[in-house]
Amino acid sequence: MINTLYLPELREMLELSDVDGLREFCTALHPARTAEFMEGLTATEAWSVLQAADPATRVEIFGYLDREKQIEVFETCDPESVSTLIADMPADDRVDLLNAVDEEVARNLLSLVPADKRRDIQRLQAYPEGTAGAVMTTEVARLPESLTVREALQELSRIAENLETIYYIYIVDENNHLRGAVSARRLVTHLNKPKMPITELMERNLVTVEATDDQEAVAAKVADYDFLAIPVVDHEQHLVGIITHDDVIDVLQREATEDAYLAGAVGPLEEGYLSIPWFEFTRHRAPWLAILFGGAIITILALKSYHETIDKVAWLVLFLPLIVSCGGNSGSQSATLIIRALTTKEITPASWWAVVWRELLIGLALGLFLGAIGYAIGCFVAPSFAAALIIPITLILVVTCGTMVGSLLPLLFARLGWDPALMSAPFVTVIVDILGIVVYMNVALLMLRELS
Amino acid sequence: MINTLYLPELREMLELSDVDGLREFCTALHPARTAEFMEGLTATEAWSVLQAADPATRVEIFGYLDREKQIEVFETCDPESVSTLIADMPADDRVDLLNAVDEEVARNLLSLVPADKRRDIQRLQAYPEGTAGAVMTTEVARLPESLTVREALQELSRIAENLETIYYIYIVDENNHLRGAVSARRLVTHLNKPKMPITELMERNLVTVEATDDQEAVAAKVADYDFLAIPVVDHEQHLVGIITHDDVIDVLQREATEDAYLAGAVGPLEEGYLSIPWFEFTRHRAPWLAILFGGAIITILALKSYHETIDKVAWLVLFLPLIVSCGGNSGSQSATLIIRALTTKEITPASWWAVVWRELLIGLALGLFLGAIGYAIGCFVAPSFAAALIIPITLILVVTCGTMVGSLLPLLFARLGWDPALMSAPFVTVIVDILGIVVYMNVALLMLRELS
Repeated sequence: MINTLYLPELREMLELSDVDGLREFCTALHPARTAEFMEGLTATEAWSVLQAADPATRVEIFGYLDREKQIEVFETCDPESVSTLIADMPADDRVDLLNAVDEEVARNLLSLVPADKRRDIQRLQAYPEGTAGAVMTTEVARLPESLTVREALQELSRIAENLETIYYIYIVDENNHLRGAVSARRLVTHLNKPKMPITELMERNLVTVEATDDQEAVAAKVADYDFLAIPVVDHEQHLVGIITHDDVIDVLQREATEDAYLAGAVGPLEEGYLSIPWFEFTRHRAPWLAILFGGAIITILALKSYHETIDKVAWLVLFLPLIVSCGGNSGSQSATLIIRALTTKEITPASWWAVVWRELLIGLALGLFLGAIGYAIGCFVAPSFAAALIIPITLILVVTCGTMVGSLLPLLFARLGWDPALMSAPFVTVIVDILGIVVYMNVALLMLRELS
Repeated sequence: MINTLYLPELREMLELSDVDGLREFCTALHPARTAEFMEGLTATEAWSVLQAADPATRVEIFGYLDREKQIEVFETCDPESVSTLIADMPADDRVDLLNAVDEEVARNLLSLVPADKRRDIQRLQAYPEGTAGAVMTTEVARLPESLTVREALQELSRIAENLETIYYIYIVDENNHLRGAVSARRLVTHLNKPKMPITELMERNLVTVEATDDQEAVAAKVADYDFLAIPVVDHEQHLVGIITHDDVIDVLQREATEDAYLAGAVGPLEEGYLSIPWFEFTRHRAPWLAILFGGAIITILALKSYHETIDKVAWLVLFLPLIVSCGGNSGSQSATLIIRALTTKEITPASWWAVVWRELLIGLALGLFLGAIGYAIGCFVAPSFAAALIIPITLILVVTCGTMVGSLLPLLFARLGWDPALMSAPFVTVIVDILGIVVYMNVALLMLRELS
């Protein structure tokens, strides 16, 4: 949804070079709202508007523009002014963005950034995507352990301007080993004891993560502990950065979206639903459907090998979609529950035995329940009450098959170190579909032989 | 996963009433880790261990115990000591918990809590579940607008001990109308200007939410703006509380779990996967399967009404599961994408026209693609190349049907003010299954009439 309310005014102010008007626009609202109102502008127009703002506001508003526009600004606007913006941006955000733009452009921009910031960017760029190092920021409130409360506050007031957060202040020794942390709240409550050494106030039992740890595991940890930020250390306990609550929210949201997409047989998307051209989107969706289509082709072969039974007992066909979908649905339920429980670390592959036992009981009970309804309907359709028994027997077996496959496959994937979400509902369904047909036809064959 | 490492030692210390040992255990680790090690204890044992900790640590560790244990402590342990804990707990958490325990117990506990805390609890309890008011905390850093920087810091240091966060300090007028906010960082950076009025430092353009707003909308707002906390006001702009980042993470995670469950045809769960007894779990899952079963029964009726065609042209049956699953899969993709885009507010029901147009094009393209593969297979199975055309024609129509139903139904639900996630993949699939059979049979009838 693009907000077009202020666009004509903005364009007019740009035309008239009305710097005062533009500055007023940039400061009147919360930066996030300002960015929203600028969505309809081109990258060049947006960049011109931002020139009217003071550097701090410019960085803030820029941070709320959508990613495509940010990339366009980096790639098309005057490199020199863009490089000043880069120097002012939060350490983690600018690396993300530089990794996303054209390589040539990134190199050129980087050469214009002051040397200390450049080194910082290059250090962060060295961490592989998906690690804690790649989302952390290096701008940490870091104080030596020798300070008193008053000195700490003074030092903090000097450095706070350039930091993303000061909610936790990290205390390091002379070699930058992490020794502890003090919350801003704790520091403030001891204002009346200015001479107290901060080491007396600091929390020493810190929960830390390593820079090479997996992002999702880190996000889950922060969410569990309700932290505002978590310190990132290297393998020698040197403080290298922090990951803040907003990065954690981003990671959690990205992960939820990815899992939701996999559950719907869509691969992860880099952009929003409406920003991908329709044909590219089709190309993105086609392989997933093709994989499932490949599975469904096996149902043709399965049915073909039983064609004699079907030809002889025509009423069996009527129940085919029902039986196939029942197995798929019970499998979807199990796969969804197990994948979610694995994601939230409630279960691990090690507890597979408890899970499979539960799912077996639940599958049998659900099968009995649906089988009872199925038998009632079967009695109307089948030639005899005895023949109708094919339906409930099949349903009990197929529903149990569904819960077994739906629980075992994600556990197996997790065990192998793969993402269990890859074994999501649609993929479980296609496997259970094939099993369902085989079970149905064999139950029918056996029952019919028994009856004749 | 229950950590049993310290259980024998803990039980022995309890037996010997080794208060020093227990206190050591309570303070040695981060409270979240301590709580983890206590998971294997009964509620009574856990409560006895916590008696050794000082009140502040006790509240912290208690906050990290799992919910079931917390409820058990409230319901079974000595009400008087529990009521002291309640008085110390964060305002939002204790209300959540009191709402979860037995009503009689809650009333009894509430009567033992000091009057001011009791009034606070009752005020929060008045907000309906799902609103901003129900997750907010009333413990806000709130300062009058007349203070200077120095006075503000002094006042803050006096009240900070009892507050959940001091990252934003809210400035109110004498009638508690919200006037602005100052971040702790901004206050600290102006330490060297102690006489400056805080009104000069404060941000006046605040983004606020109303206590009656929907929780999920509030969470999305905070996540968008990267806020640490958002102030909650009543309809007259009185400051009534704040919602902090950890509550937002909880809401986002709960929402992701709920949507994942709906996408797998499971209703929302109050407890974890392993904590629900298997039979209760079966009762929880059965109604969802029964609804889908009800839909599948219609496929029997649909097939029955075309039994003449099926009897005459037996090879059509072989493709039945394939065609039905193709429609379902393309519908799942669309439903998943649209529901996620609606949840993240990327699209609104108002943009239905753009969405449906895209899905129509994508559906046709995907149908053509799968139809081409389907035709190749059909040529092997069908008696003639002409008869095999039934398969691709049906696939194009069914896949397009899938994308249409999968996109329109969630949009319609959102339009009607219902949760679009209720129209998730399994429900879309069952509708497309029925449509698929009708389309298939009609295409076959028309083609066969044409050919004969």
